[in-house]
Amino acid sequence: MLLALFVIFTATTLTASAATVDENAQAIADLETALTFVWLLVAGAIVVLMHAGFSLVEVGLTRSKNTANILMKNFMTICLGILVYWAVGWGIMYGADAAGLIGIDQFFLKGADNALWNSWWFQMVFAATGATIVSGAMAERTDLKAYLIYTIALVAFIYPVYGHWVWSGADKALLAGVESPIVKFAGVGFHDFAGSGVVHSIGGYSALAGVMLVGSRIGKFRNGKPVAIPGHNLTFAFLGTLILAVGWIGFNGGSTLDGNDAYMNLVIVNTFISAAAGAVAVMLITWIKTGKPDPSLTANGLLAGLVAITAPCGSVNNWAALVIGLVGGIVVYKGVMFNENVLKVDDPVGAIAVHGYAGSWGLLAVGIFSIGMGNGILSDAVYAAEGVGLIYGGYGQFVIQVIGMVLSIAWGFGISYIVFKIIDLAIGIRVSAGDEIAGLDQVEHGIRAYPEYVLSREEA
Amino acid sequence: MLLALFVIFTATTLTASAATVDENAQAIADLETALTFVWLLVAGAIVVLMHAGFSLVEVGLTRSKNTANILMKNFMTICLGILVYWAVGWGIMYGADAAGLIGIDQFFLKGADNALWNSWWFQMVFAATGATIVSGAMAERTDLKAYLIYTIALVAFIYPVYGHWVWSGADKALLAGVESPIVKFAGVGFHDFAGSGVVHSIGGYSALAGVMLVGSRIGKFRNGKPVAIPGHNLTFAFLGTLILAVGWIGFNGGSTLDGNDAYMNLVIVNTFISAAAGAVAVMLITWIKTGKPDPSLTANGLLAGLVAITAPCGSVNNWAALVIGLVGGIVVYKGVMFNENVLKVDDPVGAIAVHGYAGSWGLLAVGIFSIGMGNGILSDAVYAAEGVGLIYGGYGQFVIQVIGMVLSIAWGFGISYIVFKIIDLAIGIRVSAGDEIAGLDQVEHGIRAYPEYVLSREEA
Amino acid sequence: MLLALFVIFTATTLTASAATVDENAQAIADLETALTFVWLLVAGAIVVLMHAGFSLVEVGLTRSKNTANILMKNFMTICLGILVYWAVGWGIMYGADAAGLIGIDQFFLKGADNALWNSWWFQMVFAATGATIVSGAMAERTDLKAYLIYTIALVAFIYPVYGHWVWSGADKALLAGVESPIVKFAGVGFHDFAGSGVVHSIGGYSALAGVMLVGSRIGKFRNGKPVAIPGHNLTFAFLGTLILAVGWIGFNGGSTLDGNDAYMNLVIVNTFISAAAGAVAVMLITWIKTGKPDPSLTANGLLAGLVAITAPCGSVNNWAALVIGLVGGIVVYKGVMFNENVLKVDDPVGAIAVHGYAGSWGLLAVGIFSIGMGNGILSDAVYAAEGVGLIYGGYGQFVIQVIGMVLSIAWGFGISYIVFKIIDLAIGIRVSAGDEIAGLDQVEHGIRAYPEYVLSREEA
Repeated sequence: MLLALFVIFTATTLTASAATVDENAQAIADLETALTFVWLLVAGAIVVLMHAGFSLVEVGLTRSKNTANILMKNFMTICLGILVYWAVGWGIMYGADAAGLIGIDQFFLKGADNALWNSWWFQMVFAATGATIVSGAMAERTDLKAYLIYTIALVAFIYPVYGHWVWSGADKALLAGVESPIVKFAGVGFHDFAGSGVVHSIGGYSALAGVMLVGSRIGKFRNGKPVAIPGHNLTFAFLGTLILAVGWIGFNGGSTLDGNDAYMNLVIVNTFISAAAGAVAVMLITWIKTGKPDPSLTANGLLAGLVAITAPCGSVNNWAALVIGLVGGIVVYKGVMFNENVLKVDDPVGAIAVHGYAGSWGLLAVGIFSIGMGNGILSDAVYAAEGVGLIYGGYGQFVIQVIGMVLSIAWGFGISYIVFKIIDLAIGIRVSAGDEIAGLDQVEHGIRAYPEYVLSREEA
Repeated sequence: MLLALFVIFTATTLTASAATVDENAQAIADLETALTFVWLLVAGAIVVLMHAGFSLVEVGLTRSKNTANILMKNFMTICLGILVYWAVGWGIMYGADAAGLIGIDQFFLKGADNALWNSWWFQMVFAATGATIVSGAMAERTDLKAYLIYTIALVAFIYPVYGHWVWSGADKALLAGVESPIVKFAGVGFHDFAGSGVVHSIGGYSALAGVMLVGSRIGKFRNGKPVAIPGHNLTFAFLGTLILAVGWIGFNGGSTLDGNDAYMNLVIVNTFISAAAGAVAVMLITWIKTGKPDPSLTANGLLAGLVAITAPCGSVNNWAALVIGLVGGIVVYKGVMFNENVLKVDDPVGAIAVHGYAGSWGLLAVGIFSIGMGNGILSDAVYAAEGVGLIYGGYGQFVIQVIGMVLSIAWGFGISYIVFKIIDLAIGIRVSAGDEIAGLDQVEHGIRAYPEYVLSREEA
Repeated sequence: MLLALFVIFTATTLTASAATVDENAQAIADLETALTFVWLLVAGAIVVLMHAGFSLVEVGLTRSKNTANILMKNFMTICLGILVYWAVGWGIMYGADAAGLIGIDQFFLKGADNALWNSWWFQMVFAATGATIVSGAMAERTDLKAYLIYTIALVAFIYPVYGHWVWSGADKALLAGVESPIVKFAGVGFHDFAGSGVVHSIGGYSALAGVMLVGSRIGKFRNGKPVAIPGHNLTFAFLGTLILAVGWIGFNGGSTLDGNDAYMNLVIVNTFISAAAGAVAVMLITWIKTGKPDPSLTANGLLAGLVAITAPCGSVNNWAALVIGLVGGIVVYKGVMFNENVLKVDDPVGAIAVHGYAGSWGLLAVGIFSIGMGNGILSDAVYAAEGVGLIYGGYGQFVIQVIGMVLSIAWGFGISYIVFKIIDLAIGIRVSAGDEIAGLDQVEHGIRAYPEYVLSREEA
């Protein structure tokens, strides 16, 4: 009798207890999801602020007669970016895979739930970034309408196609899917943690194409020699740079895509070590070469460190981040010199060197310094480069990084060249010389950004 | 014997296990609370930054001779806002209900614990926002002392009274309580997710009252025709606008008041789709009408999209957010024209159209586009409009939204008119013509905001 | 038979159930850690943004001819800060304790894991702050190289040594360890929640040493009377101040070092009550004394309220925070007057009064207003002052606060005086009179920050 009672009691308790254990497990899973949601919303918010940073850098490093135009361009870049990435871009990037090359559904976020909206939000804030890079390089002489049409093309197609190859997660995804012939050849997938390639290289080499087609600003080259055209407000340029640096906390930190992944800490620490190293490198280079440390180049050194570490930040040691940043600084300095003196292209803000060249360096750096997922400090990592880098005796990762890098240049430069060419033939991408000298604010918008201030005469 | 041992063992284990299950459940509940605390602190931080955004927009769109005064006004708005909402405002808004009209305890946060401090923090950052809206509309000719007194009245009483009707959660709360006769009449409660009405309409129509009483700036109207008075720094205006856009991530995103509510994702996505649509709409309107896209109106288009979606963001589909934003853009453009050409009121920053008119549109939009809590994508939602909108065949929600909208206009305009009138009679709300021409910086503060720069002569 | 089956069933279920309970407990612990990681990354991000705030305040309150130099200084402060605190500073501050005075391992974060990287990140963002304080006070006449060398010394040694005494957690830690003779004498440990002493006093009194050695700017004193040298951009100064205010949400809010500690809410609320009180106090003082409220002093009033509450924010009631802020405002006003009229030192931004004097006040305020951990609203607190303050009849906490305050002055002023003296003897800390008059931008960097604008002639 007692035993029977006990049996009944035990059974009841057990059932209750077991149920609660399952309920707890479910509540825990919900919490993990909720933490990811909060983290990616916040990380995305920090990245949205980067659009203010890009605007300020571009405004600060250019002349005041084009300020309203630049503000408007960058402002519409994010506005159009939101709508286009909602309607088209996301579907191309993350929709059902077709042949490893492109996504083909989920347009207008059809059938979205809160998890998808969360993912879209964090990806969307990246999508418009590529266009802002192009905007900076082509500033002060590009037609507004032409630029806006290009922006739509970039967010709808140029950016998400390469993004699909790397980040879609499709088995056949050209650069990272296990069934891709390229991945099979290298033996390991391409690793671009937060977009040294997907975002920055694509933006940088697209900018190169745009700059080559639009030509240099009047007065930038005299007898083949580059002439400095100082920006009108260094405070804006530095405020913008600092906002961008903060933005990278969301940009890289959020890119584990999981609020429960402790490796976000390694990511952030590496990111800022590299950033600092890039800035220090350029400060020293310019100090040694000219006797005076150059502020705006030094700011670009920090950005180059950030761009370079964006791919390898979750796969390398702190000391490697330091090296990557130092080399990133050298790359941006040499790149700016190369663009001005060899290529003879005019990039007012240094975007091609910062995002293109330093981005390529970052992709290679993965192949050189990667510890390899599961090794050493990456023992528990779930989102890092799989292969080990050259310095640890690995080759496959380096091979695929070279391939991915070459493809980012070919795709970014090539498709943007074609798109800009088409736009140029259709409506023209460059304003008239008279309009350029008058300034785009008057011509495109009929206003002045700072109407009260007396300006010194500048030479055209 | 064996059986007895087993019984003892089982009982012991069970007890231990059951206890741990309960402990786990408690730990999970604590974590859910902690996640909400962190999220609302961060969301509130983002909203605090909006005060920098409001300052920059107002400074940028006005003349440099009033900059120091505007900075000081906006700075003291948040400072006074903190102290007044702590001492009085919170109690009026969330204290024990009296007749559904007003709260009557918790002044000075008496008896607060960490949960209350968290709630206060997130509500406080909203409270001072209404005053900054008024500040913008009345800029360049309002007496500082008069404005500060008004700000105290707004944060202590004007804002929290209407807030009490909508957000207090009291059973009798005039617009949202189940026992309110108005709610019984409509059959459903008024829904204003994050404050298209509570924050923006109240601010916007209060601004209208203030502007009508203080009058237009000298030179704004000539022979009854509005004259453009350009702001002195468009970069500040755009930086401010972008900061405000980021701020809305906290403003709307945090307004589910729960870090574990997945619907924050729908909220954020709808918010930015609407914002982008508002900006694109105004850019296109001005481009078509004048041949040149207008930067500052376009910036206001984005803000109008944000204000309009603030009420419906958690209750509508993505496509509806697009429509709400587009219409919001049209509303702000038409509203600015209406204010200048029909009402003949002078609002340097367009605050009345952005916050008042677009806010009203947002309240109505809930009644038109609401999916209704529990339906479709809102299947698990716990904080959304209960009724379905007109387009889905519902009427009750639209009816209560109209009532709430009318009350927000009547209360905001009416009480602010009375308060400003009293202040005007007591100490005067407008500076002298001489002081206005000299600029408020010299007169009210004895300084200049940019003493080094040479300014061009402006006409008075 | 049935019984046997039941026994087996029960045992099986129990095992499964127990295992899952343990798994749940582990998952909960992991979530608690993850929430802390996310919170401290975000809080740190907000603090990084403060470097933009410090730059803007310093730029805004000084002359445009030194803007590029100030931007560069502040920019390199955080860049060098990252590298130096990674290589050396962290080890000195948190490495294995030697005699309660200094840490001696963990250089280059040797052996770090994700938990350590998270801690380093949040501490690193504090470390460079002290140097930016010094930067502001010594602006417009200090040699760049000298400043950068000093910054390395501060982040590597000056800051982390005092930090070790207070925050290292070592049993013998001079000011807070249970085995420290000073702590034994007072009966309770020194409490400096987020660094009124560790960060702000050290920075402020180091700045005093630097300012005394570098001397005043040319033209600051005429016949022994201070002359106002207006800053060139008040909008930058206020934007910077608002960014700093937001930064304090991370600075103080994150300093419980635990995303699960509900007391972050008390901390934030007290922080902003004190900030607002400081601003209101100074506005009223200047309004009463001169008839016109002074904007930049009022902004410093807010900062003084923030600095003062940084130590006591988690240990006092709301009303005490109000008093602490009000007194903080008075302290900064009187301190600026004292510096200019009695000490005759030239501090362009008021950094010594804001960070030094208000920081000292904050340390004392703990000893006066502390509720004491476990008492009243601090019933569950785990990171607050242990002793009760003077007003509640306690003495020990006040005694140790006085000792800690005196040590912060002695160490900050003393060691910085020595370091600056050495640098001065080695390479000189002051630029030539000609360079100072020409402006550091031309001399140190060969550029102008705003080359397009026509400036009015200023007197040298």
